[in-house]
Amino acid sequence: MTHTKEELDEILAFGTSLARKAGDKIQAAFLQNKNIQTKSCNTDLVTETDQQVEAMIIQDIKQCYPKHKFIGEESVADGLKCDLTDEPTWIVDPVDGTTNFVHRFPYVAVCLGFCVNKERTLGIVYNAVSGQMYTAIKGHGAFCNGKPLKVSSETDLKKSLILAEFGSARDQESLDFVFENLRSIISTPVHTIHCMGSAALNICAVAAGQAEAYFEFGIHCWDYCAASLILDEAGGVSLDTEEGELDLMARRILAAANNSIASALSSKLVHKRLPRD
Amino acid sequence: MTHTKEELDEILAFGTSLARKAGDKIQAAFLQNKNIQTKSCNTDLVTETDQQVEAMIIQDIKQCYPKHKFIGEESVADGLKCDLTDEPTWIVDPVDGTTNFVHRFPYVAVCLGFCVNKERTLGIVYNAVSGQMYTAIKGHGAFCNGKPLKVSSETDLKKSLILAEFGSARDQESLDFVFENLRSIISTPVHTIHCMGSAALNICAVAAGQAEAYFEFGIHCWDYCAASLILDEAGGVSLDTEEGELDLMARRILAAANNSIASALSSKLVHKRLPRD
Repeated sequence: MTHTKEELDEILAFGTSLARKAGDKIQAAFLQNKNIQTKSCNTDLVTETDQQVEAMIIQDIKQCYPKHKFIGEESVADGLKCDLTDEPTWIVDPVDGTTNFVHRFPYVAVCLGFCVNKERTLGIVYNAVSGQMYTAIKGHGAFCNGKPLKVSSETDLKKSLILAEFGSARDQESLDFVFENLRSIISTPVHTIHCMGSAALNICAVAAGQAEAYFEFGIHCWDYCAASLILDEAGGVSLDTEEGELDLMARRILAAANNSIASALSSKLVHKRLPRD
Repeated sequence: MTHTKEELDEILAFGTSLARKAGDKIQAAFLQNKNIQTKSCNTDLVTETDQQVEAMIIQDIKQCYPKHKFIGEESVADGLKCDLTDEPTWIVDPVDGTTNFVHRFPYVAVCLGFCVNKERTLGIVYNAVSGQMYTAIKGHGAFCNGKPLKVSSETDLKKSLILAEFGSARDQESLDFVFENLRSIISTPVHTIHCMGSAALNICAVAAGQAEAYFEFGIHCWDYCAASLILDEAGGVSLDTEEGELDLMARRILAAANNSIASALSSKLVHKRLPRD
């Protein structure tokens, strides 16, 4: 199954309107006290808003596109399988940056990826607090609030600003892995490392030319499906951390402004394989 | 010498107008290519904008308040002494987050602190990209764009979002120190650690209730003079990292939502003394 550009434009219009509706719900709950639960560990948080927003998104898509499939963070947390087929499939993160949401830290995004024949075809990342709407259709460029995005032209890792995260695992082995990579990168030396708490917005920051690269191990397809297409369409490269083709289910990404930065960064990292999505 | 509230209101109005004028210069240069120089090391950056904005700020203050003294980041870099007397003294950072400015990472601030009898009396921190103007007069509350600021009510370090930085030093001893503290804090465990690259905006984020605490060793009086007063006036606490009274020249700070968080965080840190400003 393929879609014409007109069909994709229509799906994009539907998706951005849906992301804005989801963002309004997040915005309304942003300053309220939240009922916080935990998932895989004490630092892996979820709120009623994550669950309600995902349910709303899936309901709206079902109504408008009854044949489309879904993979959603909270649906998978509730036991649904993470099954990407050739069918048109939405990959949904209702609240990327839940810990930020809980703390009222204004860096929270709605992520809507859309795959056809297992290929990333359309991506929407909406910063629900700032109102920045990042969009891309494969082969047709990337935009923020309608303005074209362009990656940094820096090719020297030593002159780079790198985005990374401490992650949510707190066991010693996981922390050893995270800290080994952070120490290796900072010692390159790079200009600095920033940590903002949203994988999707980190990737969009690379797409917008605000940082040269981002890497992470242990995230999920809904964290990077939409944003990685936006980065590719802004002229950047979304790769596996070992520089192969990006694998949506491999739970790791190297997002960079160009291959030179990607290659230099990859060589500084220790890598690990994770249970697939 | 003391000032009436009316005099301070007038100085605040002058200062916010000056910060906005400085912010306009930063905003105009933000997307341009910059001529970058280095100071203490290859990762300690400075641009013509830092120098031009500081010169403009000092010139405007001299014109309006000829008796006031100054301490400015770039003037000190150029060899002026960092001399805080009882005289009314402005402590100026023209561009807090120069590395962010260089990378077009939208987290850059103009900082204007104002001390009388060596006491922090008035503080202005202006995010030149977002347009958020943080202000405080001692004893009269803290505001962002005129709206009162209030710190987080969380008292449990384990449920906290902590702000920290990797710093600009890249020698092994300095990095050992930075990483020991980051590892100690993340292992507490805390919800997460974020790094944004601006000391002043980190402290303002604590003042705004977006994070529970921030700590750093090796920064300077112009990085925290204005912001720490804003935090205190928002109901938070600005302390020395070992929990004593904040020392403007000691180049270290523990900024927290409350004493409970400050005390728990301080006990997790290794501390060091630095050459004074």
